[in-house]
Amino acid sequence: MTTHTVETCAKAKLAIRDTLDVVGGKWKLVLISLLRSGKKGFNELSREAGISPRILSKELQELEMNGLVSREVCNTKPVTVQYELTDYSNTLNEVLVAMEKWGYQHRQKIISGN
Amino acid sequence: MTTHTVETCAKAKLAIRDTLDVVGGKWKLVLISLLRSGKKGFNELSREAGISPRILSKELQELEMNGLVSREVCNTKPVTVQYELTDYSNTLNEVLVAMEKWGYQHRQKIISGN
Repeated sequence: MTTHTVETCAKAKLAIRDTLDVVGGKWKLVLISLLRSGKKGFNELSREAGISPRILSKELQELEMNGLVSREVCNTKPVTVQYELTDYSNTLNEVLVAMEKWGYQHRQKIISGN
Repeated sequence: MTTHTVETCAKAKLAIRDTLDVVGGKWKLVLISLLRSGKKGFNELSREAGISPRILSKELQELEMNGLVSREVCNTKPVTVQYELTDYSNTLNEVLVAMEKWGYQHRQKIISGN
């Protein structure tokens, strides 16, 4: 990243806020990351992410609204619901890879005590 | 990103949570982005980011604690405090660039109505 001028700085701030508005918060990127291994049911996601059903439901609804996750009602008894990533969610790959890499190196830094 | 197995999925989830623990929330990445154009005073940051002093103070303290921002008390009358990015904050460049790019393309998508 080159040095920011006032103008590019404002543009960058807006773009970052836009991204955070859609995938910010504690859970959305974690959920997207978990769904990369394939479609999952609600309870499975709740367990794997460690999120309460109430919050999970809200987060999934927002992800669906923004076209990142699709919801499929399965004709089972009892009825189950499966969630999977949309093609559009692939546009977030670069963000996810960068965050994975940073989280990994930061943990190594903390462990090594630097 | 390749397809995740259960194991790489758990590792990715941990790394993303680690990153979100340090720079998650509504403001930290915005603040880092704003500080790229150079050191800034507290009031200047508060105004540019549109954050209340109370929340800004807490966010800056956490960024300082994690070695991403440094705080300098200036011997002026009245005393002023300046904040600037540390070298370590540069490790977040890839995350910031990816988020800027995504926010920008997402806004274009919304505007074009697709």
